[in-house]
Amino acid sequence: MKVIALSGSLRAASINSALLRAAARLAPQDMRIEVFRGLGDLPLFNIDLEAAVPPSVAALRAAVGGADALLIASPEYAHGVSGVMKNALDWLVSLESFINKPVALLNAQPRAYFSDAALRETLKTMSAVVVESASVSIQLTADTLTEEGMLASPPVTQAILAALLDLRAAVLGGGGQGPLFPVR
Amino acid sequence: MKVIALSGSLRAASINSALLRAAARLAPQDMRIEVFRGLGDLPLFNIDLEAAVPPSVAALRAAVGGADALLIASPEYAHGVSGVMKNALDWLVSLESFINKPVALLNAQPRAYFSDAALRETLKTMSAVVVESASVSIQLTADTLTEEGMLASPPVTQAILAALLDLRAAVLGGGGQGPLFPVR
Repeated sequence: MKVIALSGSLRAASINSALLRAAARLAPQDMRIEVFRGLGDLPLFNIDLEAAVPPSVAALRAAVGGADALLIASPEYAHGVSGVMKNALDWLVSLESFINKPVALLNAQPRAYFSDAALRETLKTMSAVVVESASVSIQLTADTLTEEGMLASPPVTQAILAALLDLRAAVLGGGGQGPLFPVR
Repeated sequence: MKVIALSGSLRAASINSALLRAAARLAPQDMRIEVFRGLGDLPLFNIDLEAAVPPSVAALRAAVGGADALLIASPEYAHGVSGVMKNALDWLVSLESFINKPVALLNAQPRAYFSDAALRETLKTMSAVVVESASVSIQLTADTLTEEGMLASPPVTQAILAALLDLRAAVLGGGGQGPLFPVR
């Protein structure tokens, strides 16, 4: 099972990126999480470029298209989705394989509900399946704001792992929906 | 009075950009509207770049900082604000002169209420003043989707001009609020 993780922040010390890297290290052996690092290379969305999409866009589409699920962690800026994350989604709107894609949204800012709600609305509009049980707020403290800090914290690792197992179950067809995607 | 107009679409045939160019041509003599064309040149927001912001970011900040008001028209993509527009706003969050800046939001897709609501929330969070009477939906028809088509249509030109006059009044201090900004 292959999962592509997208961080909505480009900051080197991003908490959201750290959370995704920690998730990649915690994932069960049969669930490979790849943190996609090319969101910052995307051009700003312009439908006029569709005739010959830049390699960065093609790389994003190939990664997402080939994944069984997505894992998203994105900051909230000014009560909105980060432009970085929304720009990536704008490039994915036309991707047919986005339909029914299981998505887990990890929220590292539990009080950031505007962005979380807006992301869910956009993902549902794009016909993805937001896996609610896997879309959780992760309570972070001053000593769990880095990848190593997260991995050293039992409550944080347990919360991440619970979300991953729920995402895994959704891909495998838990909840009686039948397999959403073939598992390779 | 100087107004900077920002379009959330980079498409050459963008209806939102056409609407702003039409507004610039219709504006009263004492109200100069400049359609800012550099949003597509901005890098994706990354706070790590703040130490030495790229020239494109400095140009946006100088234009907005020097304006008495903003005029925004932005498309809705997948029930969300376009990444292009949100990325521009992300670069403006830290701009002190954004505080109390009068903003008019023109909406060329009257049924696109998700993006309109999200933009208002973000602008208010950034401490701008959304001038409600100047923030209107413009009803467009098949023959008013271009700048020339808009300028040839009495209902469209009247709707645009009414919004501009309300924005002008807000800058000049109409409504008993006193001048929000000095008018040069």
